[in-house]
Amino acid sequence: MRNILLTLSYDGTSFCGWQRQDSCESQTEPVRTVQGEIEKVLAKIHKEPISLQGSGRTDSGVHAVGQTANFISPIDSIPVDKYIPAMNSLLPRDIRIHQAKEVHADFSARFNAVSRTYRYFISTSETPFAHEMPYVWSIRRKPDINVLNEMASCLKGELDCTTFASSADSSPSKCRYLYDAHFFMEGEKLVFEITANAFLWKMVRSITGTLIEFEGKGFGAKEFKTALDSLDRSQAGVTAPSTGLFLWSVSYEGKRVHK
Amino acid sequence: MRNILLTLSYDGTSFCGWQRQDSCESQTEPVRTVQGEIEKVLAKIHKEPISLQGSGRTDSGVHAVGQTANFISPIDSIPVDKYIPAMNSLLPRDIRIHQAKEVHADFSARFNAVSRTYRYFISTSETPFAHEMPYVWSIRRKPDINVLNEMASCLKGELDCTTFASSADSSPSKCRYLYDAHFFMEGEKLVFEITANAFLWKMVRSITGTLIEFEGKGFGAKEFKTALDSLDRSQAGVTAPSTGLFLWSVSYEGKRVHK
Repeated sequence: MRNILLTLSYDGTSFCGWQRQDSCESQTEPVRTVQGEIEKVLAKIHKEPISLQGSGRTDSGVHAVGQTANFISPIDSIPVDKYIPAMNSLLPRDIRIHQAKEVHADFSARFNAVSRTYRYFISTSETPFAHEMPYVWSIRRKPDINVLNEMASCLKGELDCTTFASSADSSPSKCRYLYDAHFFMEGEKLVFEITANAFLWKMVRSITGTLIEFEGKGFGAKEFKTALDSLDRSQAGVTAPSTGLFLWSVSYEGKRVHK
Repeated sequence: MRNILLTLSYDGTSFCGWQRQDSCESQTEPVRTVQGEIEKVLAKIHKEPISLQGSGRTDSGVHAVGQTANFISPIDSIPVDKYIPAMNSLLPRDIRIHQAKEVHADFSARFNAVSRTYRYFISTSETPFAHEMPYVWSIRRKPDINVLNEMASCLKGELDCTTFASSADSSPSKCRYLYDAHFFMEGEKLVFEITANAFLWKMVRSITGTLIEFEGKGFGAKEFKTALDSLDRSQAGVTAPSTGLFLWSVSYEGKRVHK
């Protein structure tokens, strides 16, 4: 028995999110999820059902380049580094395994995670290229990055994030510890990077949509802080679409230090 | 009546290439092509069938960021710049229109083109991220870019390209004028850019595959030149997959000058 931690990427376009969903009787086809596809491959390799635990769920359409997940392998005969080619040859190409390493028996990809980093990609050009469409939010204007970063600087420390919580979020506490939030340009794309110990459901998309909407209205850090402190969902702006969102990395070693 | 030239991009992943294909009786669904999808939208806008002529065809799975195509519009009431939002709102999101301009009556996107530039994207990392998979050729090694560029420097001037012509290519002459061919790095990706007056069917993929294969075998410019001069298809290497190939731009104004 070994506990194996995977680092993986996926193109969220054709998935109904991360979490395995058992198909209802009324459905003829099972719902396609990242966890479901990987568990199918792990079952094939191990010849028995294997349960995979991710660092967290991602929604339908959300991508990942550094998702992590662990599983208990009942067999010791497969060298750990052989999981990468073995799984990649069986997985659909919209999921790729990048690392596999043995971790201590009680390690949990979810509960041992110290922080998660997301990046949100925004196209500022008049029309994004067709092949970029599934991976950006197209806003067709160039916001003032200084104003955005002034607002984003409010997103530091222990914060009650109720303003940015989906009404369907069932977390008992809406407080999260935010390490960093800032914007930068990558070519023609505006990128928002945010790191926290954990996130509420749709929180990154709600924050991103609010920041962009507020900047467009001529609001600044003062108005953003007021919305944040209001703990009132109706004070938030639009929820940015899932297409632009990437789970970028999950950290297990102390607080992630940013450049 | 106006002759309108479009500049457009497409994600080739879900298309059976550029060219409209009339569905056979045995097929229940028509084949999905870029030209076919755009002509459907043009017919909807003009309320009559409109024929679109591209600068050239691209194969199944090949992408474009700067394809050009023209059509004769029977109505003058639509301002030319309104075609962009009108068409983008009706087109599937894997085709995007970027420019629309009126050109002289006898202008042809195909016959007036002076040169075409393609870029071929090669992933050199052990495993590309899942969202990169449809847009690269994954070769899992880092070739020597200097050796590649020495070989690529043979691809200049008026050349008989029979070595790189698909056996199914029906062009009466296999001679093409090559303006430039070179490799450069873009982050972790190796990019091959090639410009010629025109290309034979699958020629860019054959050249790219041969260059990468030859470099892997320790061959250099001498061996590449020998293969090129042999005019023997069997001297070429593998044909690189369609995924990495982008029609980058089409030039109508003199010879394209490269940096």
